[in-house]
Parts: sequence; structure tokens; C-alpha cells
Amino acid sequence: MFEILATDGAARAGRLATAHGVVETPVFMPVGTRGAVKALGPDDLRAAGARIVLGNTYHLFLRPGHELIRELGGLHRFMGWDGTILTDSGGFQVWSLAKLRKLREEGVEFRSPTDGSTHFLSPELAIEVQHALGGDIIHPLDECLAYPATREAAERSLALTLRWAARAKAAHVRGAGGRQALFGIVQGGTWEDLRRRAVDETVALGFDGYAIGGLAVGEPKETMYGLTELVAGLLPRAQPRYLMGVGKPEDLLEGVARGIDMFDCVLPTRNARNGQCFTWDGPVTLKQARWARDGAPLDPDCHCYACRGFSRAYLRHLFMSDELLAYRLLSLHNVHFFLDLMREARAAITRGAFEPFKARFFARYAVSSLDVSRDELRPEV
Amino acid sequence: MFEILATDGAARAGRLATAHGVVETPVFMPVGTRGAVKALGPDDLRAAGARIVLGNTYHLFLRPGHELIRELGGLHRFMGWDGTILTDSGGFQVWSLAKLRKLREEGVEFRSPTDGSTHFLSPELAIEVQHALGGDIIHPLDECLAYPATREAAERSLALTLRWAARAKAAHVRGAGGRQALFGIVQGGTWEDLRRRAVDETVALGFDGYAIGGLAVGEPKETMYGLTELVAGLLPRAQPRYLMGVGKPEDLLEGVARGIDMFDCVLPTRNARNGQCFTWDGPVTLKQARWARDGAPLDPDCHCYACRGFSRAYLRHLFMSDELLAYRLLSLHNVHFFLDLMREARAAITRGAFEPFKARFFARYAVSSLDVSRDELRPEV
Repeated sequence: MFEILATDGAARAGRLATAHGVVETPVFMPVGTRGAVKALGPDDLRAAGARIVLGNTYHLFLRPGHELIRELGGLHRFMGWDGTILTDSGGFQVWSLAKLRKLREEGVEFRSPTDGSTHFLSPELAIEVQHALGGDIIHPLDECLAYPATREAAERSLALTLRWAARAKAAHVRGAGGRQALFGIVQGGTWEDLRRRAVDETVALGFDGYAIGGLAVGEPKETMYGLTELVAGLLPRAQPRYLMGVGKPEDLLEGVARGIDMFDCVLPTRNARNGQCFTWDGPVTLKQARWARDGAPLDPDCHCYACRGFSRAYLRHLFMSDELLAYRLLSLHNVHFFLDLMREARAAITRGAFEPFKARFFARYAVSSLDVSRDELRPEV
Repeated sequence: MFEILATDGAARAGRLATAHGVVETPVFMPVGTRGAVKALGPDDLRAAGARIVLGNTYHLFLRPGHELIRELGGLHRFMGWDGTILTDSGGFQVWSLAKLRKLREEGVEFRSPTDGSTHFLSPELAIEVQHALGGDIIHPLDECLAYPATREAAERSLALTLRWAARAKAAHVRGAGGRQALFGIVQGGTWEDLRRRAVDETVALGFDGYAIGGLAVGEPKETMYGLTELVAGLLPRAQPRYLMGVGKPEDLLEGVARGIDMFDCVLPTRNARNGQCFTWDGPVTLKQARWARDGAPLDPDCHCYACRGFSRAYLRHLFMSDELLAYRLLSLHNVHFFLDLMREARAAITRGAFEPFKARFFARYAVSSLDVSRDELRPEV
């Protein structure tokens, strides 16, 4: 299902084939939390060049429920998206969003933050839910360790995640997931030896690809980059590597440089709703009065609908007036920008010029990848 | 600028040519209050078949200001809409939205409801603002009488509106509005003789078309229909007639039957944001649990993007989850429906079958035009 077409240092350009098409990597996946990438339609996503989106098992399990989605023909048909879908396992959201979590060997009991109802998710049920949703790439339920955590907690958590991974794999094999790829998730907190153990034991179970979980949860950037490099270097070369929940444009490039093929983050859509736009010249905050009379497009080098049709002054006016169109146009632009960044990275890898591309990007974008605060990387609720 | 192509009883099918294209009538104009039809982009409006949209002078005057829009090339360019734009004069919004209005012969002083700032609008300034915006069809400042009103208040108000209309006409002739058409507004409250006087004196001033104002403000439906019929029957046959702020699908057909060519209302977009969708089988309220597992499109006879791509169950899920995409898709559908209704009415007039078309519409839509409450016709703020 995965083919590496070119490499440049640790960076790889590849093709990921799924039941719903081909995805060129490295790739950024817009997040469709509740069966929609916020403020965007499938037409917008296609126009931005998206070929893969992420769906959140946790959110869809709670509402409208996986049985309803199965009954209506699966998530692709439900959300009108005929491209590839990756679903996460719900582990991260149970950890970050749910109330009154009770973690047991069998699974995790939690309360919905919206209506207080009690739910139980086990590794087997998480797979069953994802079989019902029908995503092309699915994941085992994992425990997402808090940061910082004690060594003892990290060991206990990793052991549980590994036992759950084995159960998830068994459930997937038993179930009707023939056309669905199952990725393993590498946890292990910030301990290098635990990360090594996580890679060894996860790879030993055998998955179609590997996600790196438990990063971008508050640790310093150096730690995140270092562990990404370590884990990516240990994972099987021939399979896709997915860095979960990352990140900013600079994080994406640093991840690609370390051998990551896939990323997802709510950043482009959530920041759009706060009026922050990503451009090749760095972020633009539309609230600032300096844009009020600016007739230029958001990013003169961008070919998205928002940049082709409208001025900064107009987009700012929409945003300041709470016009819903602002959220669509700014989200469309930001997603387009993230996808463009990955397209450019892919092209640079193919011609063996990823490092100069990355250096030029940082020179113009004017953000050092190590000095940006991480406070905007919390998950979308 | 206006050509009648076919008539059927009092109903007319025509073509309205402006500096930004040809509009086929009868036509419904989506309302772009603040330089955007709420939740929709120009691409959505085009896809729905819109060729003319309305802009609110009052809102754009307050924010971002007409000078800014002039500086950036006018409202068409500002909002990325290359079709026809009609702007109202601001009179209705001053009356319905502004605080602490002080009405004088010279004009009206009011406070912005958003920031409390004081503003003054005169007939001359309202024209200057609309010249700056550059809409294809503009309107004189009028006083919109409250309902109910005393005979004395109605007479005084009409006289002021007529004096303002003369000043607006003079300002338009003096100004640079050569490519802009100026419509007159017929007021006069609920008194037939005042409405007759309003028609006589407004027509005597000479305008490019005539709007009927001061209806759909709380009076009974019979009164609205009766006064529409009276005024439409008195207006010059060769010029377009625009019934301001109307209305529901049934009101549009009743207006067309009485000789109205143009309508505008926030109903399709505002009700969309409340989860109410218009269909040929009557309104659908998506909040209702009955739609939760319904795999059918919103309206099987509609060809809009929302109906082609998604089920009622999905649209309901988006709406119940407060997903922004819900507002776009439902607004798109409702606007498409209103425009379709007018397209079908036009076709029926052309083949001399408007009355049977209207009867079939009501039989299926199952709403009597006289028994619908009017509480949803308030203006968008």
C-alpha cells in the first residue's frame, strides 16, 4: 500500500494507496472531527488539494454514533467524501476531553462532556466502531500519557497500550476490516528506552503503518523533534510513518526532515476561526488594524479561492463582523497553505533539494522552529 | 433597462439589464447585509443561480464605511461579486435597528447599536454613500412607518419621504451615478388613499423603477396582499416593481400574481441558520428527531450541492453539532430553493400557466398563503 518514490536524507516522498485513492506523501491531513472539516465542505477540501482527511472516532462514537453511520453507508458516504479517510482510535480524546475517566485493563469508562452520559470503550469496541465508520486507515485504542509523567506511570501506560494493541490487532483480523489498513501507535512518553521498547513491541505485532503518539502534548520542541527522529529512525523503512496531532508549518518541515510521511492537526482550521492565517511570509493576524485598508490578497503566492477573489481588507471586515463566510474562506486558505507546503516539500525531496527548500522557507517565514510557543496545539473539542 | 417578455394576468416575466449583467424576473434577491450573504460565498451564490444580490447601505455605512469600500474599488470588487447589486437606502434599518433616532427635516440622527457612536444620514448622504458603494440599483432615504400608525403620523411620514425622494433624485442627478439606476420607494402605510398619493407623487418625480416599502412590518397578510395589488396596479407598466423585504415562498407567489418583479428577504439564510429548510413539500425542521436516520436528500427535486451530496441525517447531524458547514449547506439550499421557485414561476408565466403552477405549488407545499404567522419576517441584524 505504500511506495517510496524518492528520499533526501531522512526525508521521503511516497505514494500511499488506499481503497479510496492515492495519497502523495508527505501529506497533511485536515481534521474532520465530527464528520466535517470545520467550516469546509468536501468541495472546498478537493479545491484545496486534499486527498485524505481525518475523522475522530471518539466524536463520531458519541454523536451521531457509529451504528447510524454504518446504517447510512459508512463515513465516506455520510460526509460526502470519496477520498481517503483515516480515523484515530479515540484514545487521545478520551484522555484530553472526557470527564471522569476510569481506566481498567478491559478498557476505559468515561463521561461525555456534552451530556454527561457514561460510555465504555475497549480496544475491541474501538476497532468495531472504526469498522462501522469504514475509514481506510484505522488505529488501535491507546492510552495517551500526560506530560510530564513519572517513569513508573510511563512504563505502566506503555505496557497497557501494548496489550491493547495486541487485542486491537486480533479484533481487526477477526472483524470485517479487510480493506482497512491498521496502523500501530508508538507511545512511551519522553523516555528514549521506552520509545525503543514501544517500537520493538509494536512492530513485532505487525501493522500496515506506524503512528507516533504522545507528542505535541506540552513537551519542549527539542524533545518532540528528538523523539520523532529517534522513533522514525527505528520504524520499518518500507511503511508509512504518521506523527499524530502535529503541527505548525515549521513542525511539519522538521518532521519531514526526520522521516515523517503523515501529519494531522486542527491548527489551520482552528486558527482560521480566530483570524490567524498562515502565509509564506509568516502568520497574519487579521484582527490587526493594519490590514483594514489593504487591497492585496492574504498571500500573493497562494492560489486558493480566498486569495484569488478577495482582499485582506474584505477578509478582515468579514472576520470583524463575525460573518460566517470569514471562517470558510480563512479555513480554506489555511488548509490550502498546509497542503501547498507539503506539496512543495515533496517536490523538493524529489529533486534532492529538501534542505535548501526548508532553509528558504524559514528565512522567509521568519519563525525559528524552536522558539514558537506550543499553546495553540491543543485538540479541537 | 427593463423589458417585459411575457405576461399572464397581472404576473410578468421580464429582463432587467444593469451595468453588471442581465437579471431575469420575477427574481428573488439574497440579502448580503454586510457585504456577504450570510454563510455563502460568491461561488455558492453563482451555483445557486443568483444574478443579483442586495447590499445594506446602513450596515456598510457603519462598517467598514463607504469611503473604505470606494477606495478598494466599490462593493462589487470588495465582496468579489461581479453580478448585479441592489442597495437599499438604510431607511428601514435606521427605523428597525438604530437606537435613539432623531428625525428632522434635514435627515435622521441615530446611534449605532454595536458601538453607540452617533451618525447622521440625510437623503443626499444616503445617495453619496450608495454612489461610493457603486450598486447597480440604489434607493432614496425613506422613513419607514411603524405598524400600526395613526392617520396623522402616516400623512406626516409620507410627506417627509416624498420631500426626501425629491432631494435624493436631485443628489443622484448631480452626483456621479450615471450607470446606477435609482428606484423610488412607495410608502403610505395602510391607507389606500395615501398609497395612491405616494404612487402619484413618486412617479411624478421619475425613477428607473419602483419599490414598495412599509409592508411586511406586522400588518395582516390580507392587508399586505391588498396594498401590493393596489400599488402594483397603479405603477407604470414598463418599469420594474420591487416588493421590499418579502418574503416566504407563498408571499413571493402572491406578489408575482399581483405584478411584482423583484423581492428580497433574509428568510432563506436566517431560517437556514435555525435549521429550517424550504422544500417543495413544505418546510423541514432539521431539529426534529424524525430526520436523524433519514438517508434521503433534503429535497429530492432540488439540484443544489446540499441536496446532491448529503442526506437529511448528515445535515441534521451537522446542525445539531453546531458545525459551521451546516449553515453554509442549509443557506445554499434555501437560497437555491427561492431562486428555483422564481425560475419556475417565470417559466409558468411564459407559457401562460402561472395560476395552475401556483395552485399546484400550494397543493404540494401545503401552506395556505393567508394562515402563516409573520413572526419570522423581521430583518436580519
